[in-house]
Amino acid sequence: MQELTVIGAGVIGLSCAWRAARAGWRVTVLDPAPASGSSWVAGGMLAPVTEAWPGEEQLLDLGVESLRRWPGFAADLGPCGLRTEGTVVAATGAGDRAELDAVAAHLSRLGRDVERLSGRELRRLEPAIGPDVRGGLSVPGDLAVDNRELLAALRRAAAASGVGFVARAVQAVVDDGQRVSGVLVDGVVRPATTVLVTAGAHSGSLHPVLDGLVRPVKGEILRLAHRPGAFPPPRRTVRALVDGRPVYVVPRDAGGLVVGATQTETGFDTEVTVGGVRDLLRDAERVLPGIAEYALREAAAGLRPGTPDNRPLIGAPGPAGLLVATGHGRNGMLLAPLTADAVLGLLRGEPGPVDADPTRFQGVTA
Amino acid sequence: MQELTVIGAGVIGLSCAWRAARAGWRVTVLDPAPASGSSWVAGGMLAPVTEAWPGEEQLLDLGVESLRRWPGFAADLGPCGLRTEGTVVAATGAGDRAELDAVAAHLSRLGRDVERLSGRELRRLEPAIGPDVRGGLSVPGDLAVDNRELLAALRRAAAASGVGFVARAVQAVVDDGQRVSGVLVDGVVRPATTVLVTAGAHSGSLHPVLDGLVRPVKGEILRLAHRPGAFPPPRRTVRALVDGRPVYVVPRDAGGLVVGATQTETGFDTEVTVGGVRDLLRDAERVLPGIAEYALREAAAGLRPGTPDNRPLIGAPGPAGLLVATGHGRNGMLLAPLTADAVLGLLRGEPGPVDADPTRFQGVTA
Repeated sequence: MQELTVIGAGVIGLSCAWRAARAGWRVTVLDPAPASGSSWVAGGMLAPVTEAWPGEEQLLDLGVESLRRWPGFAADLGPCGLRTEGTVVAATGAGDRAELDAVAAHLSRLGRDVERLSGRELRRLEPAIGPDVRGGLSVPGDLAVDNRELLAALRRAAAASGVGFVARAVQAVVDDGQRVSGVLVDGVVRPATTVLVTAGAHSGSLHPVLDGLVRPVKGEILRLAHRPGAFPPPRRTVRALVDGRPVYVVPRDAGGLVVGATQTETGFDTEVTVGGVRDLLRDAERVLPGIAEYALREAAAGLRPGTPDNRPLIGAPGPAGLLVATGHGRNGMLLAPLTADAVLGLLRGEPGPVDADPTRFQGVTA
Repeated sequence: MQELTVIGAGVIGLSCAWRAARAGWRVTVLDPAPASGSSWVAGGMLAPVTEAWPGEEQLLDLGVESLRRWPGFAADLGPCGLRTEGTVVAATGAGDRAELDAVAAHLSRLGRDVERLSGRELRRLEPAIGPDVRGGLSVPGDLAVDNRELLAALRRAAAASGVGFVARAVQAVVDDGQRVSGVLVDGVVRPATTVLVTAGAHSGSLHPVLDGLVRPVKGEILRLAHRPGAFPPPRRTVRALVDGRPVYVVPRDAGGLVVGATQTETGFDTEVTVGGVRDLLRDAERVLPGIAEYALREAAAGLRPGTPDNRPLIGAPGPAGLLVATGHGRNGMLLAPLTADAVLGLLRGEPGPVDADPTRFQGVTA
């Protein structure tokens, strides 16, 4: 039985560990605080189409392919908070509507299924949407998942498949220039032959091959809860452009809403700021005025693992035995099934079926 | 040695318990969660003048008298986070300035020390004040205290004076129609001969004589923290009127700020709402724009104990052995020294030196 050491218990690390254990690997996951990082803070959108930006067609293809695998992944995993109500996108001002028109045209050219709606049509779908919204899109194929329910399900499934958890931080992957020999934990090398780096924004410092390839992109979110007497929450994910700023509201069970997300590059900083919360509240209320009466239960910040081209880094880039699956940016939940499949392929020595070009690992550091 | 049972370990209960124990009483304080209620959430202003509203002259006199006793109270207590930098009041729009003019004129007629300032003069005192502020007042005599440091100091002082703490909730004060016989705890009567009700907003249900006299008035606050690179915080308490809404910002040590406070009457509800946080952030940023870069560390709500005439209820209103010190509204921290003195007087059988007219206890229920 071959041994796999996984560094990082976010959605990517847990998904890969679970699938590898089921495929017969003896898996140990090292993380000082499993499921507490950016996966814990995430909105949980499984939304490749409404996340698509012109110029990121490869990422869109990856997302669409991973979303195709999501129902099977969820069926395998058991209850994990998957929501299939779909997504709407709302635009407020004239500039926002123009930008949405451009996105819709771009998606149509790519053959993606989006429907233009008037403000009235949007409100017929989601009565919580307010009068400042003048138009938008319906994208029924873009889904969502309760990130915390998913993390709990993955931890249970991983443990049930025999994955071992060690609550320690890894400082570095150690190799002899040819192949991996271990991981450094509290200054002591713990032997390992196959190591998978899934440490999100913290991946960059774990091995020289990742140096400069992954940077933290801070995102602040709010968690709201419906209160008796307040307007009912939307059923679909509601994304919006408000005076040029993107905002999203993802429903949870029992009237919960996750509002996100700011995007700032301030290093390893997870403090929630006044300006971030002010923007999220203002923009979300503009789209869904009824949330004024909701409870504000939590404000939190996470660090997305950003890459130079916004695509994830999945591959076997350096010494033998070193695997990497990180840099998923805003799309960790979405890309988990595809990433786990790709890592399984790498463990079997197959060329990855996905965008796992190992030359990208050299592209930036060179 | 006579025995005193105190119901409620907020600032009033702790102050009275400490002083009574020092005066020779054997004191037991019952509270399921000491120092966790509205005293924990409070802004900590000791500000009778800038809290004054026309028609509340008696409350102003009480506050001024209690503030006069504060330095001695603090010296007795030891370090408790008293801040003596004073208070400024800022006005934004024309309506706000007119209202501030009226308040200043009212205070001048009462002989209180307030100084009118232009926006520029205010900014000279507190450079953090932004350009939307067009004028205001300086009230150097209105002070502040770190509510949490004060609570910690009171708990230490009370314990050092021999006060016993029992972490249980009292359901009612029990009497035989003539005099108090005990307090009801988990359905069992715990014998007591002298009982002091200092349960804040929860006081109303503890004895029929308080029925309808104390109601919860919810207040939401935010706690901010300065971040490196952000504009330095003000040194004084900054109060403001922003489009008619009052807001205050009270400095803490090490760059902390408490922003408060909303005022809503929704029963025993301590949930923080989206609308409340939005208002506090918007109004505080309008006055102190630099806080946009501060960390938002905490949002919380407390329940002020409101009375029909906004004055506290301090007295011996019913059966022998029943004492009451509650209904301090927004002014619990400010009125603690005066209240503790008044309760000591009541324990000695003296007529209270303060506004403790026992007929007010009957005034509303009759």
